[in-house]
Amino acid sequence: MYDVIIVGGGVAAFSAAIFTARRGLSVLVLAKDLAGQANFTDLIENYPGILETGGYPLISTIKKQAENFGAKVEIAEVTKVKETAGGFVVSAYGKQYKSTALVLAFGKTPRDLLVSGEEEFKGKGVSYCAVCDAPLYKNKTVAVVGVGDIALEAGLLCAKYAKKVYMLSKTDKLTGHPGLVKALAGKKNVELIPFVRIDEITGKTVVEELKLKDLKLNKPRHLPINGIFVELGYVVKSEFAANLVKLDDLGQIIVGPNQGTSKQGVFAAGDVTNRPYKQAVVSAGEGAAAGLAVFDWLMRQKGGKGLTSDWTEIKKVK
Amino acid sequence: MYDVIIVGGGVAAFSAAIFTARRGLSVLVLAKDLAGQANFTDLIENYPGILETGGYPLISTIKKQAENFGAKVEIAEVTKVKETAGGFVVSAYGKQYKSTALVLAFGKTPRDLLVSGEEEFKGKGVSYCAVCDAPLYKNKTVAVVGVGDIALEAGLLCAKYAKKVYMLSKTDKLTGHPGLVKALAGKKNVELIPFVRIDEITGKTVVEELKLKDLKLNKPRHLPINGIFVELGYVVKSEFAANLVKLDDLGQIIVGPNQGTSKQGVFAAGDVTNRPYKQAVVSAGEGAAAGLAVFDWLMRQKGGKGLTSDWTEIKKVK
Repeated sequence: MYDVIIVGGGVAAFSAAIFTARRGLSVLVLAKDLAGQANFTDLIENYPGILETGGYPLISTIKKQAENFGAKVEIAEVTKVKETAGGFVVSAYGKQYKSTALVLAFGKTPRDLLVSGEEEFKGKGVSYCAVCDAPLYKNKTVAVVGVGDIALEAGLLCAKYAKKVYMLSKTDKLTGHPGLVKALAGKKNVELIPFVRIDEITGKTVVEELKLKDLKLNKPRHLPINGIFVELGYVVKSEFAANLVKLDDLGQIIVGPNQGTSKQGVFAAGDVTNRPYKQAVVSAGEGAAAGLAVFDWLMRQKGGKGLTSDWTEIKKVK
Repeated sequence: MYDVIIVGGGVAAFSAAIFTARRGLSVLVLAKDLAGQANFTDLIENYPGILETGGYPLISTIKKQAENFGAKVEIAEVTKVKETAGGFVVSAYGKQYKSTALVLAFGKTPRDLLVSGEEEFKGKGVSYCAVCDAPLYKNKTVAVVGVGDIALEAGLLCAKYAKKVYMLSKTDKLTGHPGLVKALAGKKNVELIPFVRIDEITGKTVVEELKLKDLKLNKPRHLPINGIFVELGYVVKSEFAANLVKLDDLGQIIVGPNQGTSKQGVFAAGDVTNRPYKQAVVSAGEGAAAGLAVFDWLMRQKGGKGLTSDWTEIKKVK
């Protein structure tokens, strides 16, 4: 029986682990893998407090901090969560784990393009987040593939930094919000490549070229690039939590200001929540708040008053 | 005319500066000083992603990141903020600055004990945040001075880590929530020192001793300690913003899930908001979200559609 089980293996999950374990709670982190969104990026330059890092070193450090404070980490994919008297039972790989409180921080998963070379070059020129990575392609050449507004917005963001932005489309035009289509058309460094399909992403150590198929001429075409943004949206694989907590239309877990969910004792943090602005440091902050909220809630459960000193004792200046 | 002026000089302010400047906005940070709460701590071990740092190095790095992305920083205390047509006018040291959007991130200020030595040993044994620093005093001797529940909670937290905790009181007892008083009384390593006043905090490079006055015997007393927690609450010096945005009863700025305030174009982040759990990384996350919200809002102001790709395009798994 743990005080808290944290489901997830990204920034939010291990941040919640730091803040619960440091308070002396018994903490188990169940991570499908050591991943999270941060893992898709080789260079992170906007995590406040660290000039430059990579997704993997960042996650590894946060995990190490959590373990230093006593959190236990197991690599196991959670398949079921059930409420029982006085707590929760979490099933992962046929094993069952029990806890009084839960933190759900299992993130979101970008939708893959599913072409050859994509897996190999993830974080090495293949990005799923223009909002995160566009500034890394200053004066470089990038391609954007995707659908609807998110692809258009990715194109616009890339156009601010890249020397050249190719928008790839299987048809003769880009679709989405007319304002975005118009804005893109007005950018001199943006070029639409119509009627193409991506067959392969190639390169030596990083992305260097796209192997395209011209669907009209039925001919192969090679496009030299430094990076490709795959903007097909994300999926939140939250089905196993659907009976436990309220989800929004997108499958995201609805949280209040203290990271609480619709279920007492269950908190959520990071990309899996309905908060906007998915960023590593936002996840870290939400994980910390969720961790403190768990401690607070457990203290109250045990008949205590809960932590109030963090906020309610601020006095108004007369 | 700046796109955004950020008021504050702590983690939240410079984090917001990173996320706005990196998006190509023109950004001015007006900081009273390079401080923020983080500056009161020599050792920070719970900032996810950094094993160990200090308040000052942390703030310095975040400031450097913001400046690297093009944010301008001026040391000036803001005394007035006024709404005008199409933006805001911020007054600081007799100078006036204009912007389209505002981020208020000027933090909170712990109430000082106002005794000799306090200023000198801030961050060197004098702490204003047991929630932040209690774990740093493992097996050490600490004193807690303060009023009401926050002092009692600080004592309980310290008792989890310290070898010995002295609760100092000017009267014969501790006051506050009966459950907390009882819990403290049950701790073997906690001792109440009644009828005392602190006259001085002394030491060589770090705190070593309290010079007390026994109010009953009217005699001086020396108390060797490694640290003292001053738990007198915080003040939010938000008067200058009171005409602009809605504040709660404690003077904290009320924010929504996207860090927006009651006023269009004004966002807030960090300790100054009504969000609980004041922690460096929570401030960093809120600053990042506020920065992205500013960018989003400005795009919409200019007739664009705003950034939506971060969240609305998450698809539900069927």
